[in-house]
Amino acid sequence: MNDLSLKPQTISLTGALRREAQAAPESGIVDAMNYGRKRGGVTPLWAGEGDLPTPAFICEAATRSLAAGETFYTWQRGIPELREALARYHTMLYGRAFAPEEFYVTGSGMQAIQIVLAMVAGAADEVLIPTPTWPNAAAAAGITGARAVEVPMSFGNAGWSLDLERLAGAVTPKTRALFVVSPSNPTGWTATPEDLMALLALARRHGLWIIADETYARFWYGEGPRAPSFFDVMDTQDRILFVNTFSKNWAMTGWRIGWIVAHPSLGQVIENMIQYSTSGVAAFMQRAAVAAIERGEGFVAHLIERARRGRDICCNVLAATGRVRFAQPQGAFYLFFTVEGETDTRRLVMRLIDEAGAGLAPGTAFGTGGEQFVRLCFARNAEQLQAAVDRVAAVITRTA
Amino acid sequence: MNDLSLKPQTISLTGALRREAQAAPESGIVDAMNYGRKRGGVTPLWAGEGDLPTPAFICEAATRSLAAGETFYTWQRGIPELREALARYHTMLYGRAFAPEEFYVTGSGMQAIQIVLAMVAGAADEVLIPTPTWPNAAAAAGITGARAVEVPMSFGNAGWSLDLERLAGAVTPKTRALFVVSPSNPTGWTATPEDLMALLALARRHGLWIIADETYARFWYGEGPRAPSFFDVMDTQDRILFVNTFSKNWAMTGWRIGWIVAHPSLGQVIENMIQYSTSGVAAFMQRAAVAAIERGEGFVAHLIERARRGRDICCNVLAATGRVRFAQPQGAFYLFFTVEGETDTRRLVMRLIDEAGAGLAPGTAFGTGGEQFVRLCFARNAEQLQAAVDRVAAVITRTA
Repeated sequence: MNDLSLKPQTISLTGALRREAQAAPESGIVDAMNYGRKRGGVTPLWAGEGDLPTPAFICEAATRSLAAGETFYTWQRGIPELREALARYHTMLYGRAFAPEEFYVTGSGMQAIQIVLAMVAGAADEVLIPTPTWPNAAAAAGITGARAVEVPMSFGNAGWSLDLERLAGAVTPKTRALFVVSPSNPTGWTATPEDLMALLALARRHGLWIIADETYARFWYGEGPRAPSFFDVMDTQDRILFVNTFSKNWAMTGWRIGWIVAHPSLGQVIENMIQYSTSGVAAFMQRAAVAAIERGEGFVAHLIERARRGRDICCNVLAATGRVRFAQPQGAFYLFFTVEGETDTRRLVMRLIDEAGAGLAPGTAFGTGGEQFVRLCFARNAEQLQAAVDRVAAVITRTA
Repeated sequence: MNDLSLKPQTISLTGALRREAQAAPESGIVDAMNYGRKRGGVTPLWAGEGDLPTPAFICEAATRSLAAGETFYTWQRGIPELREALARYHTMLYGRAFAPEEFYVTGSGMQAIQIVLAMVAGAADEVLIPTPTWPNAAAAAGITGARAVEVPMSFGNAGWSLDLERLAGAVTPKTRALFVVSPSNPTGWTATPEDLMALLALARRHGLWIIADETYARFWYGEGPRAPSFFDVMDTQDRILFVNTFSKNWAMTGWRIGWIVAHPSLGQVIENMIQYSTSGVAAFMQRAAVAAIERGEGFVAHLIERARRGRDICCNVLAATGRVRFAQPQGAFYLFFTVEGETDTRRLVMRLIDEAGAGLAPGTAFGTGGEQFVRLCFARNAEQLQAAVDRVAAVITRTA
């Protein structure tokens, strides 16, 4: 076996990887978190995560399932009980009938995104993404070999708004999908029914898929129990794939459970995509998700009320500095703001960690149009949030 | 918004999907399972799963973590305690030092495969896969846009063997990786140290990556505590990515936890791939995995002993029919056999479900060279297995 001495590997291991894998970006949010974790006493407002652990009644459903021996392979599309619970939940929330066959359980909202992206876009395809936005969808598209085309939204005195002409102008023959996050992480912008109709019309005109990320539908500060949705304006034959997660509504960020809503005719393809990614979600986790849906409405209401109060605290304290600019969030649980005279927001974030003991995320993490902003997550108890935001305000004011 | 009446979607929703997503194959194993599940009283020998639930000490570690509120986002690469436990486990099993930085926790062995494939192969690339083999790696490669090139192994009087010339002949300028499952699911073939060195030499000569699936390393019926491994023959700078799972050794099929072993210089890329697929594995699941490694050796020994006995039962009973042909498995826990005169193995499998109450998987599910075989999983208690295999033998003999 003299061949073993043959070692032509003169390039590094990373250099031998596929280009798209090498190019996958480091998360700019994690970058700040890693910096802040090294220091003690930082109030963590950087991630999209609150301060409450998952309620006991949800954890106990998983525990009971484990004790009962539900540790074997299960349905790729999700256990029937969870698909039925999701159908009932959507029927309650959107005021029309949903069938279990429209629901597919995934190993996180992120995986739901990865799966639907791989269903519609690959090498050399383009996906339009209004920015600023949560960066993971664009990164996941990039890994498939597709190109995420950022289309900046407008920020003016009326807050954030879609630039529909710019979006339409970005469509090329390679465009396969339009990725819409509403309510938006990080801006809090929320599509109006007119926005949704205009986006749908654009998609129909060009035969595009819409990927609708309505993760924050319940965290909505306008009228009614949830934000406007593509469910309100679509026909059943429209090319829309919905992605969602248990993370936010039920304080289950660490669990990694999400779901897809799609036309039942896509069921076999989605099952295959699940089979060849993680082959399903643990049955005992799904039992917890059933408990969350069936007995979690009181908890969801509590979280929403807390977020509403957190939003008021942040808006009031930061507006009072006279040095920040933001649109009051219509949905989700983030305040996305600029600080007068601060153009290097990564540096600003590091300084807020050091001097205010508050961990924010730099706007550079959220794509074109967000570079001058920082993001603060206000899903947290009022006392701690008030103290942290007061400290942030003090640092901002001091450097004036 | 008159645009909404514009509906150019004259093709079906599935027809509008990306070609590679449409082309992802249905699992031939699941096909048999779905048929068999409708009937009562079928002994399930179709999947790669035993009959024992996860041991209580593993489940209880998850339960304690849940009760302690470990429900938040965690490390993308895995909690430090699990990476350390994996390093100790490998040090014990392979007799050399491993560092925690070489380990990455994934949401199943399947996800480990998906991630390493996406790291090395994309659109228009080729991945060589000796067959018959578990079909999911080829399917996952196909979804990335790469082409899985099946290279049939030889089956003769000496059992299964790699056809190294055929493998070398299949290398093209597009070849990026060699996917090796040893011990093999479904054949039980296990690479010798000479095989491993020859494969490594081939990879070095052409600058290919090796993806080493050593899931069944412990289920090994030769000398020593585990099968020969690429760890035995590689240098640290070799392009080898290892994938593995908690599913088989610790009866955790339903949990969906696996791991990657790779050079620490690949750490940031792997972290990014995890970030953009499922963003980590639940911390409470990882606590269970730590318990499995730290306190599971007795259980693993029990499972291996059971598999050894199951192997003897199957080989003896089926050999006695005089109508089957197989190579005695050197590793893993499957018997892969042909039945004289039976060429339509999908039909044979359905008949064994109906007439023998035994659920097997058709060889057609495992790629080129396996079409004439059926696969039987013998990771099961001896009494039930004996009864099921006796019934299978009776059906086979009856139709002689």
